Amino acid sequence: MALIYLINSWPVEEWTTAMRRQAPDLDIRTWPDAGRLEDITYAMAWLPPANVLKSLPNLKLIFSLGAGVDAILKDPTLPDDVPLARIAEPDLTMRMSEYVVLQVLLHHRQQRRHDENQRHRRWEPFPERSASAVSVGVMGLGVLGTDAAQKLKLLGFKVAGWSRSRKSIPGIDCFAGPQEFDSFLERTDILVCLLPHTPETTGIINRDLIAKLSRKGPLGAPVIINAGRGKQQVEGDILAALDSGALHAASLDVFATEPLPESSPFWLHPKVTVTPHAAADSDPEMITAYVLRQIRRHQQGLSVENIVDRKRGY
Amino acid sequence: MALIYLINSWPVEEWTTAMRRQAPDLDIRTWPDAGRLEDITYAMAWLPPANVLKSLPNLKLIFSLGAGVDAILKDPTLPDDVPLARIAEPDLTMRMSEYVVLQVLLHHRQQRRHDENQRHRRWEPFPERSASAVSVGVMGLGVLGTDAAQKLKLLGFKVAGWSRSRKSIPGIDCFAGPQEFDSFLERTDILVCLLPHTPETTGIINRDLIAKLSRKGPLGAPVIINAGRGKQQVEGDILAALDSGALHAASLDVFATEPLPESSPFWLHPKVTVTPHAAADSDPEMITAYVLRQIRRHQQGLSVENIVDRKRGY
Ligand SMILES: NC(=O)c1ccc[n+]([C@@H]2O[C@H](COP(=O)([O-])OP(=O)(O)OC[C@H]3O[C@@H](n4cnc5c(N)ncnc54)[C@H](OP(=O)(O)O)[C@@H]3O)[C@@H](O)[C@H]2O)c1
Ligand SMILES: NC(=O)c1ccc[n+]([C@@H]2O[C@H](COP(=O)([O-])OP(=O)(O)OC[C@H]3O[C@@H](n4cnc5c(N)ncnc54)[C@H](OP(=O)(O)O)[C@@H]3O)[C@@H](O)[C@H]2O)c1
Repeated sequence: MALIYLINSWPVEEWTTAMRRQAPDLDIRTWPDAGRLEDITYAMAWLPPANVLKSLPNLKLIFSLGAGVDAILKDPTLPDDVPLARIAEPDLTMRMSEYVVLQVLLHHRQQRRHDENQRHRRWEPFPERSASAVSVGVMGLGVLGTDAAQKLKLLGFKVAGWSRSRKSIPGIDCFAGPQEFDSFLERTDILVCLLPHTPETTGIINRDLIAKLSRKGPLGAPVIINAGRGKQQVEGDILAALDSGALHAASLDVFATEPLPESSPFWLHPKVTVTPHAAADSDPEMITAYVLRQIRRHQQGLSVENIVDRKRGY
Repeated sequence: MALIYLINSWPVEEWTTAMRRQAPDLDIRTWPDAGRLEDITYAMAWLPPANVLKSLPNLKLIFSLGAGVDAILKDPTLPDDVPLARIAEPDLTMRMSEYVVLQVLLHHRQQRRHDENQRHRRWEPFPERSASAVSVGVMGLGVLGTDAAQKLKLLGFKVAGWSRSRKSIPGIDCFAGPQEFDSFLERTDILVCLLPHTPETTGIINRDLIAKLSRKGPLGAPVIINAGRGKQQVEGDILAALDSGALHAASLDVFATEPLPESSPFWLHPKVTVTPHAAADSDPEMITAYVLRQIRRHQQGLSVENIVDRKRGY
C-alpha cells in the first residue's frame, strides 16, 4: 500500500512533506522514483505524465489535486476503471468565496471609480445603491457556488443560482437546466461563473449570454466575474461587449490560455480586473488533511467523497 | 405638531419629498420658511444654522441625520433640554459592512499587488493565506462595528472587537476599556475603526497605536481601515508609518479636513486607498422610514430609540 505523487507544475516536496508529517505510517513515493509499481494503491495527480497512471497495476484511487478535473479527464491515458476523486475542501471553498465577495463588492461599490478619482485628487462622492438593490447570479451551485451565494446573500444582495439539477437553498432563487437559463440571466446584474469546464459549459460566456443579462442594475450594464475556467469564456465577445458598453466591467481569474499572453488586450483594458488563476490557492496542509481523510475512509472500506462522474465530466 | 428640516449641506427636497410621501398627514416645513415656530415639535438636523433649534419653544425631539453626532454636539446653541436622537438604521449598517468587508478583503487578498502586476502584464501568482490566518480587530462594537465584525467572522477571519463596555458576541473576541486596549491591538493584523468621535477617541489612531499592532500577520506589517471620523487619526503618524514600513497599507474614508485638500499626501500615496466619506451613504427613503417610525413611537408615548448620551458624547 503506497501513495505516489504525480505533480508536474509545482514543486512536489511541500506536498510530500506535509503528508509525511500528517501520516508517518504511509509509504510515500514520487515519480519517477516509484519503486515497485505493484505496491502503489493511491495517486495524487496534477497534470500527470502520460501513461504513468496506466502503468500502476494495483491502483485503487486517483486524487486530482484541485476542484476542477477538466485537465485530467482530457488525458487519453487515464485508466477508465480506477475511481477519480476531486478536492472539495472547506479551506479552498472559503478562499473562493473571499475572491467572489471581493470582486462583487469591488464592482458594486465602484471601487475603480473611486481609484480613478483618487488618482486625480478628486473628492467626488457619487450616489451609491445598497446591495439590496443588486441581483447577483451564480452559475454553478456546487460546493463553491453554494458557499459564495450564501455569503453574498448575507451581505444583502439578491442572489440567484443556476445548476443542472434543481437545488433548494434558503434565501437563494434557484434556477435549473437550459430551460431556465434565460430567466436566470435576465434578472442578473452581476454574473459569477463557478461552473466546471465540460463540453456543455465551453464558451458559455459569449455574446448571446451577455445580451440576455439585466440592463436594469444600478451600474447600467452588467458585470461578469469568471473564476471557473477560461475555456468557458469567448474572450473576443467579452472584449467587444466591454468596448460597446454592453458590459460594464469584468473580473477574470481564468483564461483560455494561461499564463495570459502578454499580447492579450485584457491586461491593459480599463474595465478588466485580471488575476493569475489565483482565486482559490491550495494550502498543502489543508488539502493533504483532506486527502488523508479520504485514504483513511478507503482503508476502512467507507465510500470516498467527491468521486468524479466521468460521463457528466465533473 | 410640525416637523422642520434643517439641512445645510445637501438639497433638502429629496428628504421632504420622501417624508411627504411616507407621511401625508405630517405638517412638514423647511428652514427658513418655518411658519409659526410654536407649532414645531420635531426637527431633522444636519449642520443646522446656529440658534435655530434654540428658537423653537415647543421642540420635543431632534433627529441628527446620521450615525455620528460629533458635529451637532459641538454646536453651542444646541438646546440642552431636548432629547437628541441619532440614526441607527439597517440599510446604513449594511452599507458600512459592505465597505468594511470590501476594504479588508482588498488588503487581505492583495488586490493592489494584483493590480500592479496587471499594469505590467505580469502573470505572477503569489502565495496567499486564507482568512483564517488573519486577525481583524474592530474598534467600536456598536451598531456598525458589531455587524461588520459578524460579517468578517462569516468570511473566516479571526475577529476581535473593542468597546467601552464589555460585549458578548458569539465568535468575536471582545475586549473592553483602556485596560484591554493593548491586548486587543497586539493580536490585530487589520484594524478597522468604527468608533464615534468623542474627546476620548480624538487622535486615537496615532504612532503609539500603530506600534502596538501585530507584526506577525501574513502581510508583515498591519493595515488600518478608518470609517469612523477623520479626527480620530493623526495623519502625520499614519503617513510616517506607511513610509517607514510600520504600516503595510491604509484605507481611509474620513479625514481631519473634508473634502480632503488637494495638497494632502494621501491622494497619491501608493499604499493608501482614499474614499470621499462614502463608506455608508444615506438612502433618503430608508432614513425617512426610520425617522417616521420614531416619530410614531413618540406620538404614541413610546420611547424613542438611539437617544444620544450627551455626557458620553455618542
Ligand atoms: N479559479 C480557481 O482558482 C478555481 C479553483 C477551484 C475551482 N475552480 C473551478 O470551479 C469549478 C466548480 O467547483 P465546485 O467544487 O463547486 O464543483 P461542483 O461541486 O462539481 O459544482 C459544479 C456545479 O456546476 C453545475 N453544472 C455543471 N454543469 C452544468 C451545466 N451544464 N449546466 C448547469 N449547471 C452545471 C453543477 O450542477 P449540479 O449541482 O446539478 O451537478 C454544480 O452545481 C471547478 O470545476 C473548477 O473549474 C476554479
Ligand atoms: N464613514 C461613514 O460614512 C460613516 C457613516 C456612519 C457612521 N460613521 C461613524 O461610525 C461611528 C459609529 O457608529 P455606530 O452607529 O456603530 O455607533 P454606536 O452604536 O454608538 O457604537 C459606538 C461604539 O464605540 C464604542 N466606544 C465609544 N467610545 C469608546 C471609547 N472611548 N473606548 C472604547 N470604545 C468606545 C462604544 O462602546 P459601548 O458599546 O461600550 O458604548 C460602541 O461600541 C459613528 O459615530 C460615526 O462617527 C461613519
